[in-house]
Amino acid sequence: MENSNSTTGLKIQLKSKIKPTEDREKVIKAMKNIFTDAEIVVPETDKIYITVEGEAKNIERFKELIRSQAILDTARSVLEKGSKGNYTKFKINKQAAYSEVVNFDKDIHGGIYVKIICSDEDELIKAIKDIAPRTKYGKIINEDEEIENEYENKNKK
Amino acid sequence: MENSNSTTGLKIQLKSKIKPTEDREKVIKAMKNIFTDAEIVVPETDKIYITVEGEAKNIERFKELIRSQAILDTARSVLEKGSKGNYTKFKINKQAAYSEVVNFDKDIHGGIYVKIICSDEDELIKAIKDIAPRTKYGKIINEDEEIENEYENKNKK
Repeated sequence: MENSNSTTGLKIQLKSKIKPTEDREKVIKAMKNIFTDAEIVVPETDKIYITVEGEAKNIERFKELIRSQAILDTARSVLEKGSKGNYTKFKINKQAAYSEVVNFDKDIHGGIYVKIICSDEDELIKAIKDIAPRTKYGKIINEDEEIENEYENKNKK
Repeated sequence: MENSNSTTGLKIQLKSKIKPTEDREKVIKAMKNIFTDAEIVVPETDKIYITVEGEAKNIERFKELIRSQAILDTARSVLEKGSKGNYTKFKINKQAAYSEVVNFDKDIHGGIYVKIICSDEDELIKAIKDIAPRTKYGKIINEDEEIENEYENKNKK
């Protein structure tokens, strides 16, 4: 059975609005705090409301944070809820990100839009399992084994 | 009959939160755009969420803006709704203020808190009439005369 947790080929698209009273460097810092290798493009414009976009590949810091903050279950449900085909998209709180905290709270005003794209749907499912594995009693479990065990247990009864 | 529009003695208290990704100078600029003589105090703190407070006396720019934006009726209702005793309080949109626009929209996230304080309730009512006089067919009316006329007209019938 293949049980690869490789997230190679995974691409992360980032987007955030910068409000007039915001400091663009601070917004970029917030994005890079979570996606460390993000390359953010600031459009050349005189407009006071601007949108910065970027791309990243490194998901490690995001993974670390959702583990250290013990929000794997929330993260899993957010990643699953936002998934469609080969990608999943969700928002994270920009202000929290500035303080190196991942927060998926709904009442975020102009958060950071995150889109994680894989080569296909199967790869996305693998990536989600890798990023936010299921837990049981607060511990990460191997959900594929778990499902097999449950299946076996059922059949034994 | 006294019909003074003097707003002498009027005091304006201002307050605004500065979010981590915001630039404090831009927030202060937003406040000063509307209340030009505002003196804003930035607390000395290492906290990433800070609140700046200030005081102003000059209401002229605010008055100009609600006239040029033709939002006198909205302003009047906001000022009346927020009034209690000798003061009235309300919020204005910080992002709009940064662009020298007065916006009372409810869906403001961390706006600028404004409290206009007068010596007593009568002075406040006078101040509100002065700041945001009633209009009829889009034109400012002298509402005290208007009420007297209406009263007279009723009595004639």
